[in-house]
Amino acid sequence: MFSSKNGILHVEEVDFKEIVRKTGTPVYITSKRLVEENINELKRNFDFAFPLYAVKANNNLALMKIFARNGFGADVFSVGELYLALLSGFRGEEILFNGNSKSDDEIRAGIKAGVKFSVDSMDELHAISRIAAEEGEEVKIAFRVNPDINPETHPKIATGLRTSKFGLPADKIIDAYKTALELPNVIPAGIHCHIGSQILDVSPFVEEIERIFDIAIQLEELGIELEFLDMGGGFGIDYHADGKCRFETFSDPIREAFEKGLERIESEPELWIEPGRSLVANTTVLIARVNSVKKSHYNFVAIDAGFNTLLRTAMYDAYHRVAVANKMDEEVEETYTIVGPICESGDVIGRERKLPRVEKGDYIAVFDAGAYGFVMSSQYNGRPRCAEVLVDGSRFYITREAESIADLIAKQKIPEELFR
Amino acid sequence: MFSSKNGILHVEEVDFKEIVRKTGTPVYITSKRLVEENINELKRNFDFAFPLYAVKANNNLALMKIFARNGFGADVFSVGELYLALLSGFRGEEILFNGNSKSDDEIRAGIKAGVKFSVDSMDELHAISRIAAEEGEEVKIAFRVNPDINPETHPKIATGLRTSKFGLPADKIIDAYKTALELPNVIPAGIHCHIGSQILDVSPFVEEIERIFDIAIQLEELGIELEFLDMGGGFGIDYHADGKCRFETFSDPIREAFEKGLERIESEPELWIEPGRSLVANTTVLIARVNSVKKSHYNFVAIDAGFNTLLRTAMYDAYHRVAVANKMDEEVEETYTIVGPICESGDVIGRERKLPRVEKGDYIAVFDAGAYGFVMSSQYNGRPRCAEVLVDGSRFYITREAESIADLIAKQKIPEELFR
Repeated sequence: MFSSKNGILHVEEVDFKEIVRKTGTPVYITSKRLVEENINELKRNFDFAFPLYAVKANNNLALMKIFARNGFGADVFSVGELYLALLSGFRGEEILFNGNSKSDDEIRAGIKAGVKFSVDSMDELHAISRIAAEEGEEVKIAFRVNPDINPETHPKIATGLRTSKFGLPADKIIDAYKTALELPNVIPAGIHCHIGSQILDVSPFVEEIERIFDIAIQLEELGIELEFLDMGGGFGIDYHADGKCRFETFSDPIREAFEKGLERIESEPELWIEPGRSLVANTTVLIARVNSVKKSHYNFVAIDAGFNTLLRTAMYDAYHRVAVANKMDEEVEETYTIVGPICESGDVIGRERKLPRVEKGDYIAVFDAGAYGFVMSSQYNGRPRCAEVLVDGSRFYITREAESIADLIAKQKIPEELFR
Repeated sequence: MFSSKNGILHVEEVDFKEIVRKTGTPVYITSKRLVEENINELKRNFDFAFPLYAVKANNNLALMKIFARNGFGADVFSVGELYLALLSGFRGEEILFNGNSKSDDEIRAGIKAGVKFSVDSMDELHAISRIAAEEGEEVKIAFRVNPDINPETHPKIATGLRTSKFGLPADKIIDAYKTALELPNVIPAGIHCHIGSQILDVSPFVEEIERIFDIAIQLEELGIELEFLDMGGGFGIDYHADGKCRFETFSDPIREAFEKGLERIESEPELWIEPGRSLVANTTVLIARVNSVKKSHYNFVAIDAGFNTLLRTAMYDAYHRVAVANKMDEEVEETYTIVGPICESGDVIGRERKLPRVEKGDYIAVFDAGAYGFVMSSQYNGRPRCAEVLVDGSRFYITREAESIADLIAKQKIPEELFR
């Protein structure tokens, strides 16, 4: 869906410059068709699982609406994400309220919306039971299990290590369910697990599923009927090639592990998965403008998007493919290091990339920016956040307007009496 | 200015709970008196230098107004920061427009405001000359020099390394000034340098000043009269003790190096410094609420502020002192790891800290959060950004209102025709 026509990057049928004329730069541009392709690809490979879209990856409402329309549930991590999910058309009972630190207000909002809860601690269990009783509701829960699995990804996003903040250790989980059985207004109905993000090898997932069933067997002995086993998300994509997720490398081993597990238990739970990055990363390109080019120790290209706009590069040393959006067909001539406008040396978008000759006024395309892109953006260095656009064929829609400088002060108030 | 009264944290004379009742949590609370103390401390030690407040550290308007009132200039890094500085009362001619990636629009706004420019590249020099001519203005400039000095700080904030994106290498700087002399509407008037942030040893600063004068001598030979030599910022603070900057450890060696340098040249430039962190970090505490406590591999305390609110811990593995704000006088009993609500394992605010017994509903104080705190915050995981408060004696003022969930969708638009 990203192609070159006369050397100009097109998103589906739209010339990126048409968009930039309306939105300015930087701007995130998403191809609707690519979102739908990913959805179909996932469904074809995971027809045995129920997918919950991981809202944290990208909470653009128009994008989320596509997932809701396509029968997805939602994995939300805060009352904010819950609200965005409901607004996008996800049904309360198909939302799992995740998270290791929920306030009572968030729990109450979740209960009112009829969601299921992933419970991270006994404190949270007691809070859910108490608030559900106050609201006169019965709430289905799963505990988040820490499986102690090392998925070999970036340490900041490996969430199932023994030392991780998430979930309860396996040796405490049975007692946790026992307590849940004794408490009013909570119904243990599932098991939740998540081992990390951007994982490319299927074997940790297979191991994870085996551990989930180890627990499932014990829960059945307690008389719990399991409705869902949620293995979380984490399917990685190929940031170095095409940004796609190879769903087919994950699906067969996972299906086999799941079917083998089902033979070990009586109940017939659904398998839930929580894809985010794998569905949205490659759908979106970030376009930024070149403000200057200079030869210093490296050949630096300074653009108007930095880690205020795309935090991943500075935060995780993440790799994103780049191109010169207005010189797609020109020959590669130079090696450039692409940097943002932020006052930190770590503000590098791409190191030593081979590109056609770049000049001030050119546009840099940063690919696979649809996951953990806009959602992590800030106004750091006094920079308003940028626009988001959804392309559908030959039409495009601004789905999020760029902020203006006025938005930097929207919530600020000067106590004038201090300055008389 | 942070003290315990009956076990409750007070900011100046205000009980933090009074504030939290109005703003909710998390909330950043700043002591005006501490800001003024730091200003006095800086001025006492650096009476030989002109200070430009580094807006990037904290762009709260009320805070900035205190600096403007106290005769500071401003170091801005974008048109957004320029606008905030003007609004806070800084005078255009006392603003230095810094940055390695300025758009033409930003340059024009700077010229109209009458600022001076730190010029990062020849592309930028030509743009400034062209736009200044269009506007009929004469613009005073300094080139940003890359001094190739290693200040031994976090690599992401060491900005004066040879490999850094900032400035021009010393061996190209003279040619750059020569070009500037030939261009219309730009007046070379200074030299700008900056070696990094959170630097605790004075020797790299002394080395930096010597290199600045090495260049100054050569510029005088070109007939340039130097009005200012800007050594940038970077004075570090003691995050492990009291969060204070020991200005006195920096001032004498810097004064001596500057005076020695002055003897080498004819002009009588001012020394400019760009303190940020050292003036604001220790003035501010972040208060967050405890949502749950659990014993897993560590004793985890989950609070409602994560790296969405305070990025430094996840981004730079930064250390911040913590306390239980409502149990200031209780005895230390346990070792806790304090984590935020964000869906990443890296979302840790403090590792293995000794604290009194913590329970759900308690409040955690995170100290020295006034620099690179709110300014780096985001709405990641669907979390609205929090409030900021300024305390003056027994009164407090909400200087930034907390966002609501509605602010997550303020700029979003759903293209309804796609979903009929």
